[in-house]
Amino acid sequence: MFSIRRYQDSDWPAIWALLHATFQTGDTYAYAPDSSEAAIHTAWVELPMATYVACAPDGQLLGTYVLKQNQPGLGAHVSNCGYVVAPAAQGQGVASAMCEHSQQEARAMGFLAMQFNLVVATNQRAVRLWQHLGFAVVGRLPRAFRHQRLGLVDALVMYKELGV
Amino acid sequence: MFSIRRYQDSDWPAIWALLHATFQTGDTYAYAPDSSEAAIHTAWVELPMATYVACAPDGQLLGTYVLKQNQPGLGAHVSNCGYVVAPAAQGQGVASAMCEHSQQEARAMGFLAMQFNLVVATNQRAVRLWQHLGFAVVGRLPRAFRHQRLGLVDALVMYKELGV
Repeated sequence: MFSIRRYQDSDWPAIWALLHATFQTGDTYAYAPDSSEAAIHTAWVELPMATYVACAPDGQLLGTYVLKQNQPGLGAHVSNCGYVVAPAAQGQGVASAMCEHSQQEARAMGFLAMQFNLVVATNQRAVRLWQHLGFAVVGRLPRAFRHQRLGLVDALVMYKELGV
Repeated sequence: MFSIRRYQDSDWPAIWALLHATFQTGDTYAYAPDSSEAAIHTAWVELPMATYVACAPDGQLLGTYVLKQNQPGLGAHVSNCGYVVAPAAQGQGVASAMCEHSQQEARAMGFLAMQFNLVVATNQRAVRLWQHLGFAVVGRLPRAFRHQRLGLVDALVMYKELGV
């Protein structure tokens, strides 16, 4: 059981702890493993159109995601999201719920599609989850991700038209 | 005959005139047709790693391009470029020369690949030119570009590994 709501400033310490630990693994997200707190605050809170958190009933942070335009101007009808789930909350459907929530939010904001630009091909759990939620693999980028254990690996572009 | 060199501040008035006229057509680049000069200066001069110009021997601006990282951190070994050729300079090989130049520059900076994120599928001249210069179509984004005459059209993701 959890709820998803908009970010508020008091969420930041828990989000930073989660993002810092997650990005340090260097196997899923492009953010440099040694990214500073200020850089990640900019990327996760200041630049996106909206930031969200998934919380347990006791307020514990289970996950967080961001929603933004994927391109400016004439590509601004396509949204982009990034999701992070707390290690202790894996397997509870948090990523799935955040992705469904993000699609509703994107539709409400007028977006016509959602694009993921850099899904690490070796992250098969994520690829399967996004496919299950209606996203198609529309592109494959050769050796576009510098995996911290595996070296250069392919990344996928995934896409879903949101309909109305 | 033309030369390609780094941007200098005195180039801006001619570049802005070219970019403003180009983006107003709304058929090739994502920048909104009504983008302000300040917004385009940020996008074309401040945010990229480097900005270049192609000039005729008399100094006239024939084209301009930008070079940047396509992703942060673990995707930062992939470069991204955007090129604009002056209408009066079409057909002289300016785009081709700028693309070749950008690949040399990107290699020299240590990039391993170059990615174009949003090549408008109806811009067949550009698609064929990039293919001729070694780029592959690695993805197709359904209706990802809002063409000002044709409505929503597909966009292509194009990619080239730069080798060494």
